[in-house]
Amino acid sequence: MQNAISLLGSTGSIGRQTLEVAELLGLRVRALTANKNIALLEEQTRKFRPAVVAVFDDYAAHDFRARVRDTDVRVVSGMDGLVEAATIEGADTVVTAVVGTAGLLPTLAAIGLGRRIALANKETLVCAGDIVINRARAYGADIIPVDSEHSALFQCLAGQYPVIGGEHPAPGKQTAPFIDNGSQYPSVNGCIKKLILTASGGPFRGMNRADLQNVTPEMALRHPNWSMGQKVTIDSATMMNKGLEVIEAMHLFGVPPGKIEVVVHPESIIHSMVEFADSSVIAQLSVPDMRLPIQYALTYPERVPSLATRLDITRHASLTFEQPDLDAFPCLGLAFETVKINGTACAVLNAANEAAVGLFLGGKLNFYGISDSVRAALENIENIEDPTLDDVISADNAAREFVNKSAGSPSA
Amino acid sequence: MQNAISLLGSTGSIGRQTLEVAELLGLRVRALTANKNIALLEEQTRKFRPAVVAVFDDYAAHDFRARVRDTDVRVVSGMDGLVEAATIEGADTVVTAVVGTAGLLPTLAAIGLGRRIALANKETLVCAGDIVINRARAYGADIIPVDSEHSALFQCLAGQYPVIGGEHPAPGKQTAPFIDNGSQYPSVNGCIKKLILTASGGPFRGMNRADLQNVTPEMALRHPNWSMGQKVTIDSATMMNKGLEVIEAMHLFGVPPGKIEVVVHPESIIHSMVEFADSSVIAQLSVPDMRLPIQYALTYPERVPSLATRLDITRHASLTFEQPDLDAFPCLGLAFETVKINGTACAVLNAANEAAVGLFLGGKLNFYGISDSVRAALENIENIEDPTLDDVISADNAAREFVNKSAGSPSA
Repeated sequence: MQNAISLLGSTGSIGRQTLEVAELLGLRVRALTANKNIALLEEQTRKFRPAVVAVFDDYAAHDFRARVRDTDVRVVSGMDGLVEAATIEGADTVVTAVVGTAGLLPTLAAIGLGRRIALANKETLVCAGDIVINRARAYGADIIPVDSEHSALFQCLAGQYPVIGGEHPAPGKQTAPFIDNGSQYPSVNGCIKKLILTASGGPFRGMNRADLQNVTPEMALRHPNWSMGQKVTIDSATMMNKGLEVIEAMHLFGVPPGKIEVVVHPESIIHSMVEFADSSVIAQLSVPDMRLPIQYALTYPERVPSLATRLDITRHASLTFEQPDLDAFPCLGLAFETVKINGTACAVLNAANEAAVGLFLGGKLNFYGISDSVRAALENIENIEDPTLDDVISADNAAREFVNKSAGSPSA
Repeated sequence: MQNAISLLGSTGSIGRQTLEVAELLGLRVRALTANKNIALLEEQTRKFRPAVVAVFDDYAAHDFRARVRDTDVRVVSGMDGLVEAATIEGADTVVTAVVGTAGLLPTLAAIGLGRRIALANKETLVCAGDIVINRARAYGADIIPVDSEHSALFQCLAGQYPVIGGEHPAPGKQTAPFIDNGSQYPSVNGCIKKLILTASGGPFRGMNRADLQNVTPEMALRHPNWSMGQKVTIDSATMMNKGLEVIEAMHLFGVPPGKIEVVVHPESIIHSMVEFADSSVIAQLSVPDMRLPIQYALTYPERVPSLATRLDITRHASLTFEQPDLDAFPCLGLAFETVKINGTACAVLNAANEAAVGLFLGGKLNFYGISDSVRAALENIENIEDPTLDDVISADNAAREFVNKSAGSPSA
C-alpha cells in the first residue's frame, strides 16, 4: 500500500472520491490541485493539510492565498504550480484526476521521478500514449489505471503481466506466455485474444440516428449508472468515452487495436473482461463505485476493505450484453479508425471532441455536430507519426482552433 | 506446460476429453486406467501407446491382456494397478478422472512423488481433504483443479496465491494479502470475502418439493448444460454436486465454510467467482466445455489455444443469478452442515450419497430417498475428528453399508 499521495484535480468527482479513499486508508495528502473551485479546495486543504496547493487559474490562486493565509500551506498556480504539486517530495503516488490535456505535463514530470501514477486522466494516454509509456519504462514508474474499465482489465490480468514501466517481473512461472512480440512495450498481446471493454451505452442506448438528431445537453447529462463530471457524461452519451478508452487500453496493455473490443452492458456490473489465448474469459465485477478502482490503484497489489457496497449478484434481474451501434454513435467508430492511425491523430480526436462537447454544452452544436466536428478535424489536420510532445500539443491546439472556428463559420 | 501424463479413468467423460486435449497439446500419455470398458480402452491404448494400462476389474483385465497381446503395453489390475499407473515413471502430471473413492489411494501415491495432480476426482478432497492437502504440502505437489468451478476459482485467484503444496511463491509483491491466518494450509482467506460457486441448478431448477417427489432417474439424467457421467448428473439434479464442491473448495483454497457461497446461474457461463476484501469480484467465463479446465490444469501457468469455442457474450440473451432453494434441494444444505463438522462426516456424506444414487438409479429409492439416506447415515455413523486414512475408508464403508441395508429394510 502507498503512504502519501499528490492529488491533481481534487475538487472534481474523482478527486473528491480519492480523498474519501485516502481518509479510509489513512494516507497522507501531500498536495492538492484544482482549477478554480476554491471554496471546496479550502475545505479540503483545512481537512487534509497538504504542504502544497496548486490553483490552476491565476486569479483564483490569488483569492485562495487570502483564504488560507492562516495556514502554512504553500499556494502555487498555473501549469508550473501543477507540476510542482505533481512532483512534491514525499508523495509515492500521484493521482491524476484533472480533466483534459492539463494533466499531461504534470504526469510526465511525476513519471520522471519514478512515482506511481494512479491514472484517472484519459488524455494522458490518449494524446501522448507512446511518449508516456516510453517514459514510464525509462524511469520505472508504475501506471495503474483508475478508470473503472481499465482497472477491471488490470485486475483481470493482475499477477499475469508486468506493470508498464515498473520493476514487477511477471510473477513466478507466469512469465512464459507474456512474450514481448515486437511491440514497443511489455505486452500482454501474446497471451490474450481480446480485451473486452464494457460500455453502459449511456443515456441514449437503443436510440437511433433520427431519435438522437435533436437531443439536448440536459438529456445527455442524465447518465443511468455513473455520477461523473459534465464532459465525461457527454462523452458517455456519444460513446466517445469508450473510444478514448480503446486508445488508452492499446497503450496501457500494449495490444494492437484489433484485439480490443467494446460490448454494451447496460447494467454496468461487469466493468471489463479479458479473453485469454485458451478462450477462457476473466471478468471484474462490482457495484458501480469509483472508490473501488481508485483504492485498488493505491493499494495494489494488496486488497483491503473499501467503501464500496458489496455486490449481491442475485439482486440483479439479469446481466445483458449487446454490440454497440456504430451508426447511432459514430464517435466510437471514429475512435476505432483513429487508433489504427495513432500518431497525432489521437490527440486531434481528443481535442476536437473536447472543443465540440464544449460547443454542444453551450448550445452551439447539435448532438451529431460533435462527431461531425471531430471527423472534419481529423480530415483537415495532418497526422504526424511518432510525434514529439510539442507535436502533440500543436495538434491539440490546432484541433481546438479548427472546431471552434468551424462552429463560428456560416456552415456550422 | 507439462510433457507427459498418467490418466486415471480414461474411458469416462473427463478421461475421453483429457485425451483430446493431450492430443492437441502433443503430450505423451504414459499410463491409462479404466474400470472395465475395455473396448474403448483398447482403442485408446492403440492410439496413445501408453507404457502401462491398469484395468481395475480383474476379469476385464484378463480379457484386455488378450486384446493387446500384440503390443508391448504392460497390463495391470486392481488397486495396485491403479497405483502403478499413477506413479509411472516419466509422467509429470496425473489426471485423476476416476469416479468415486477409487481415486484416493492412487492420488496419494502420486502426491508422494511430487507429481502435479490435475484433480477431476471429487472424492479425493471431499473424503480426505486434510490428509491430501497436508501430503501435498509435505511433498511439494501442485494440486490443480479440473472441475469447472474450482478451475474458475483457481483462475480468478491465479497469480494471487501459492498453489497448495507447490513451491510457487505468491508472485511479486502479491504475497502481502495472502497471510496464513492460522489455518492448516497456505490460505487465500486473508484477502477474500467469498468464494462464489455457481450452479446451473440442474434439470429440476425452479421445481418445488412436491414437484420433485416422484421424478424418475430418466428425468434426472437430462442435464441442460453439461454432458457428464450418470452419477455426476444425478448429483447435479439433487445439487449434491455443489455440496461436494463446497467441501472441495474449503480444502483446496484453505477458506472456512462460511466464506463459500453457492449461487444458481442457469446459463453456466460464469463458472465461479471470487469476491476479494475490497468487494471487487473476479469471475471466470467461457462456453461450458470441460476441455478448457482440463487444458488449464495441464498448461498452467501458461495459456495456449484450446479446443473450446470462443465465448461471444452478446449472443447470450442474459445472464441470471438466484439463491439456491435449500428446501427443494436438501442435499446442498446437508453438505453445508457437514462441511462445518469436517472429520469423517464428509466421507460419510459422500459415500452415503454414492450408495443412495446407485439405489435411485436402480429404482430402489425415490428422489428424496437420496437426501433422507444421507441424513440418516450422518446421524447414525459417529464422526471422527482428524481422521487417518483408515478412519476415512472405514467411514466410507460404514456409510455405504448403512444406506444399502436401510434400503433393503422394510422402512425404505
